[in-house]
Amino acid sequence: MDITSKFSDKVAHLEGSAIRAIFKLLAKPGIISFAGGAPDPELFPNEELSQIAADILKNDGKTALQYGVTEGYTPLLNWVKERLRSQGIGCENDETIIVSGGQQGIDLASKALINPGDGVICEEPSFIGGLNAYRSNNAKLYSVPVLSDGIDTDKLEEILKENDNIKILYTISTFQNPSGITMSLEKRKKVLELAEKYDFIIFEDNPYGELRFSGEDIPTMKSMDKEGRVVYLGSFSKILAPGLRLGFTVADKKLMERMVICKQVEDVHTNVLSQMIAYRFVTENSIDEHIAKLRECYGRKCKLMIECIDKFFPKCVTHTNPEGGLFLFCTMPEEYDAKDVMEKALEGGVAFVPGSATVIDDKAPTHTFRLNYSTASEEQIRKGIEILGNVLHEIMD
Amino acid sequence: MDITSKFSDKVAHLEGSAIRAIFKLLAKPGIISFAGGAPDPELFPNEELSQIAADILKNDGKTALQYGVTEGYTPLLNWVKERLRSQGIGCENDETIIVSGGQQGIDLASKALINPGDGVICEEPSFIGGLNAYRSNNAKLYSVPVLSDGIDTDKLEEILKENDNIKILYTISTFQNPSGITMSLEKRKKVLELAEKYDFIIFEDNPYGELRFSGEDIPTMKSMDKEGRVVYLGSFSKILAPGLRLGFTVADKKLMERMVICKQVEDVHTNVLSQMIAYRFVTENSIDEHIAKLRECYGRKCKLMIECIDKFFPKCVTHTNPEGGLFLFCTMPEEYDAKDVMEKALEGGVAFVPGSATVIDDKAPTHTFRLNYSTASEEQIRKGIEILGNVLHEIMD
Repeated sequence: MDITSKFSDKVAHLEGSAIRAIFKLLAKPGIISFAGGAPDPELFPNEELSQIAADILKNDGKTALQYGVTEGYTPLLNWVKERLRSQGIGCENDETIIVSGGQQGIDLASKALINPGDGVICEEPSFIGGLNAYRSNNAKLYSVPVLSDGIDTDKLEEILKENDNIKILYTISTFQNPSGITMSLEKRKKVLELAEKYDFIIFEDNPYGELRFSGEDIPTMKSMDKEGRVVYLGSFSKILAPGLRLGFTVADKKLMERMVICKQVEDVHTNVLSQMIAYRFVTENSIDEHIAKLRECYGRKCKLMIECIDKFFPKCVTHTNPEGGLFLFCTMPEEYDAKDVMEKALEGGVAFVPGSATVIDDKAPTHTFRLNYSTASEEQIRKGIEILGNVLHEIMD
Repeated sequence: MDITSKFSDKVAHLEGSAIRAIFKLLAKPGIISFAGGAPDPELFPNEELSQIAADILKNDGKTALQYGVTEGYTPLLNWVKERLRSQGIGCENDETIIVSGGQQGIDLASKALINPGDGVICEEPSFIGGLNAYRSNNAKLYSVPVLSDGIDTDKLEEILKENDNIKILYTISTFQNPSGITMSLEKRKKVLELAEKYDFIIFEDNPYGELRFSGEDIPTMKSMDKEGRVVYLGSFSKILAPGLRLGFTVADKKLMERMVICKQVEDVHTNVLSQMIAYRFVTENSIDEHIAKLRECYGRKCKLMIECIDKFFPKCVTHTNPEGGLFLFCTMPEEYDAKDVMEKALEGGVAFVPGSATVIDDKAPTHTFRLNYSTASEEQIRKGIEILGNVLHEIMD
């Protein structure tokens, strides 16, 4: 039988994450990867988590191993709510739940809101996991460029004026993936105004917000949201460990009711052991001390990568200057295609993500690419950027 | 703003799991619950898992805590494939992946296959998590009664003749939830024939198959599937621990490609630590010895529950006689509504699941109810069934 004839319309033409496909190339021994978005594995608190996990399973295994509550393990959920409250997030009409990684929050909110043909505006470039969540609900995608201070609000309003089907704006407001750019306070306010004027929902995806290593914090859009228009998406992946698959989502109570039912359908509830481990870690150890370590490390690595770029890349290749997060974004003159660069770089032993993996039309040539500086060691950053510089010179000189 | 006006059609009218709602009533101290579908917590291998988890996090934390592969942790995936092969499951056109609990397999396959209006035939009674997965993809549900030897195949063919939109048949073929009934070999063959004749896909959900405590094993439908028509859904929840959220799914390779993309969208990948713990447990300890313990225990508890039912329930209340799994199913004379019984039973301190939570039309009165015998202690079974018997006599005498 030909099963392909039975595929649903919503997934028949969905492409897998190009980024995750690149991961498969990384098995090549000795390859230096700037492709992922993974934390520095040297900074995982292995020892502490080992002791915590052993203790939980030994003394509270009946809870850790049994079915749990869809909304999340109550002590962790309360801790998250309290921390968000201290950041001004969550009003009385909001509800918070624990999800199986930040991605699940995007997916649940999409499922609960998107009908086929509904418009979702995304930043260009953006995060492929977000784009695919909207695509898999048959949304119509629109893109608005990210400028040096965040989304182009004039272009955004143009799209809103021209299209009456817009239901959602998706933004990674702080240390954006892939650009590393942070939206200014003025623009955040402007976007909230537009949301009210044109009656749309904002998905504010903020997995990197706690990882600022320079400059001043800017309030999240959710903390300025008086109407319940913002769905806030948080994650433990970058501040603790992605392998535990833990995130949290804040949304209007009535919307959250729908999302909880969708979560029952997707995975019943989030891994209980992981939630208990995370709760014990954040309360018994200082999560803020741990985050301070991450900030220091990523700030150092980002600075090093930029120094190496300035030294080894052709001058016509520009880069963003992130104040936090995991990524910086490079732009070549328009005549070059990042996919060609990627092929040559892989031969030389260096991987990164071409801009095509971060835009709606992923078949079009892009002259941009994303570099991750959190995962590789400092030695790898020095060596890898030099190799990449040589490849770029070879192509451009 | 009124967010309810923005809900998607597919979730606007979705009801949460009535069973999970009942769980919230169980907080009442001292209540005896036959409502869940949870393993006996006394049999969790806490000590072994505690040592394994501690060792993994200490010595292999960089793998356990980092991002993983969407398809699953390779050693566990290979172990699952090998075990399934020994059960005759998985042909060369099939692919297997690890999922975040059996429920996710149902959800991913549904998303990949169901367009709005596509027909899904379910057993009546059936598992609410399955029904909601189909509903959340706007499927049209049809039901076929479960007889003492499984689904009514005459009624099934009638529906197939009358409706040309049927894409999927959903069956829990062995120790069905909620009925405890196992489909006979003849019927399995007949259903496979009908699948070929009427060109539909079978979702064979088999979380309980390993938990046989009497009678003889019957081959799974998947093991007799020559065409890739059967999507096979397995789980670690009942043989190891539900809190770890681990399951596995086997499907046609091309379908699985779509499902993997959907999984990237849902949760990127399954919890790595849990997968590593499970792998170490099943290879270092004897999973078959562990399953033998579960079988012995559930067989003993099932026998005890039936003895107590025969002693305390009115004679007009009949029950199924499961040969494995976690549930038995009771039927009262038609004039009684299980919801009324449930209310009175809860007052008396006993919980169970009324049949209404297991059928498509969950508003209609049902004279059936599900009893779980795996979670409660033997003392609780004796006491709880006596209380329930008194409630039934009060209503019926």
